[in-house]
Amino acid sequence: MKSFHSDTMKPTLKTLKLIPENKETPIHFLRNWITPSEYFYRRNHFKYPEITPQSFLLPIYGHVEAPLVFHHSYLKSMPSKKITMVLECSGNKRTYFEPKAYGEQWEDGAISHGIWKGVTLKSLLDMVVVKHGAKEIVFIGHDKGTRTDMEGIFHYARSLPIDVALQPDVLIAYELNGSTIPYEHGYPLRLIVPQWYGMASVKWLKEIQIIDHPFKGPFQTVDYVYYPHKANDLDARPVTNIKINSIIQQPLDYSILDTGTHEICGIAWSGHGSITTVELSFDNGSTWIKAKLSVDPKQKYSWTFWRYLWNVQKKGEYTILCRAEDSSGNVQPFEAEWNKKGYGFNAVYKVHIKIE
Amino acid sequence: MKSFHSDTMKPTLKTLKLIPENKETPIHFLRNWITPSEYFYRRNHFKYPEITPQSFLLPIYGHVEAPLVFHHSYLKSMPSKKITMVLECSGNKRTYFEPKAYGEQWEDGAISHGIWKGVTLKSLLDMVVVKHGAKEIVFIGHDKGTRTDMEGIFHYARSLPIDVALQPDVLIAYELNGSTIPYEHGYPLRLIVPQWYGMASVKWLKEIQIIDHPFKGPFQTVDYVYYPHKANDLDARPVTNIKINSIIQQPLDYSILDTGTHEICGIAWSGHGSITTVELSFDNGSTWIKAKLSVDPKQKYSWTFWRYLWNVQKKGEYTILCRAEDSSGNVQPFEAEWNKKGYGFNAVYKVHIKIE
Repeated sequence: MKSFHSDTMKPTLKTLKLIPENKETPIHFLRNWITPSEYFYRRNHFKYPEITPQSFLLPIYGHVEAPLVFHHSYLKSMPSKKITMVLECSGNKRTYFEPKAYGEQWEDGAISHGIWKGVTLKSLLDMVVVKHGAKEIVFIGHDKGTRTDMEGIFHYARSLPIDVALQPDVLIAYELNGSTIPYEHGYPLRLIVPQWYGMASVKWLKEIQIIDHPFKGPFQTVDYVYYPHKANDLDARPVTNIKINSIIQQPLDYSILDTGTHEICGIAWSGHGSITTVELSFDNGSTWIKAKLSVDPKQKYSWTFWRYLWNVQKKGEYTILCRAEDSSGNVQPFEAEWNKKGYGFNAVYKVHIKIE
Repeated sequence: MKSFHSDTMKPTLKTLKLIPENKETPIHFLRNWITPSEYFYRRNHFKYPEITPQSFLLPIYGHVEAPLVFHHSYLKSMPSKKITMVLECSGNKRTYFEPKAYGEQWEDGAISHGIWKGVTLKSLLDMVVVKHGAKEIVFIGHDKGTRTDMEGIFHYARSLPIDVALQPDVLIAYELNGSTIPYEHGYPLRLIVPQWYGMASVKWLKEIQIIDHPFKGPFQTVDYVYYPHKANDLDARPVTNIKINSIIQQPLDYSILDTGTHEICGIAWSGHGSITTVELSFDNGSTWIKAKLSVDPKQKYSWTFWRYLWNVQKKGEYTILCRAEDSSGNVQPFEAEWNKKGYGFNAVYKVHIKIE
């Protein structure tokens, strides 16, 4: 007779799709500073790639003096670096756009926070000696398949501008949270790009190509682009850094509480610097109250936990707003910038509470 | 190195709350005729009760000639009956009400379909000899706790009118899907009331009381009541039978498909008889096309699977409507009857699809 304690108190991933597998972190029920690997959100464009001996080899070639093939075990023998960072899908919160955007209807859980260990991409690029005139670095994953909008088989592939790729915290990672990266998250090698949305952190890294021209792959020029107009593709801008954002984890939207003191708690994050303020409003934004932050200044890519003790004596319906500000001065807007593919939703967060 | 096949292709329950535990069946990803027990939705009012020796005793008393205490093992020695039925929480689909109703924001997954084995309640009531003038049978669960809206500790308790309680398919169940009822679903004994919403099927059954007056417990007279007006409690009606309802399981809402043939599939169910028709509309309800049903006429409390092959060549955005009809002539309405606590949402189901 199994004890129910073993399988309750435990949240589970929310399934959005099975093939390819897309599942959300149960973010409202996790107050872990580091998201356990089994709770990391899973976002796939294609079915999981097969792992072969080639999966352990990483060729770096193209516009370089000395192309090289790095073996997984060699990379593990090199000086390593650890980065603690927020990984967020640019489609996180897509379901909140009005009018709705087509695609995976992510709620709040396409975000996780982990410790990645690997070698710096810069150290590898120094070894192959990038030639003058190099513009972008292309990262190609082992995952591949068809698209609904064009013919052919495509590998998932993304590029970074050379200056971003050379940032000292961009990693070729082989560990997540102290263990080998799980299959679902890019084993054996994954690119890790702090402060950028997750589409940049290419999983199951197959090869790296240095080019002297802009990369035109569909995951670079068709997807992960902000299209602000429904009718046309004018004013398109690429998706890059994570926008200032936050959620209220507890209490849950449309929950019923009694009078008394309740803890309101949540998370705030940004790809443009650290979180400086999280504010709550109980009067639709006329006045704002600062929440208490737990910040670790050493962790510049981390999320920030926040809390506020709410004493409520009057029965009735309340709307609680939450907004965060980062060290670059970015603040969550009341209205998110609508875009056709539904990326980067970061409007002021709202929960509706009934006190009875 | 674990195989990813073992933990993909597997959906998981969606967590709505941990204490008390409320989790949804991942209904869009299960095409099992019988919902595996681990995928049954979990709906709790209080934390799980402790199991003690008393949990295996079932007293039946009150307005009877010969009160008796039945032991779990004695019940298992009696002639048994199996019922295959839909179990649906009356709050299923609550999140779709506009204006939204407070409470657990169930999407489509507060529904499961299982095989319950037990003894008929009637056989036990015959043994205690219900006295003339008995009006209701009260079922009290071991689960108890506080409420936000009144002082005190309450056990979960519900009553049935005597005529409903005497229906030959109302069971005191001890098995689900061929095994002991899991803890989360009422072990060791659970009342099973076919065709009624789940609130009637009291879990962790503690005692049964026969009364000659209406039962006034809060889960009978405050909760599980349709309150059609926001401002007052006029025209209140108790929640009883499951309303005619259906969902489209696949494709998912706001998904993107290519041109060609796609299977549209789903489930339909009713607590007022069997499903006679499931229709789809691609023109907002002007015209309807019949879906293909897989019905098992022997299973009068079961859900019905349905499917339709959709050949689509024109790119663009589509809205697909789905509605079911039952053998009593009930049809899903375009608009669900709004009620303050958000029970019985059964409006025509909609998915939005983009073909590109």
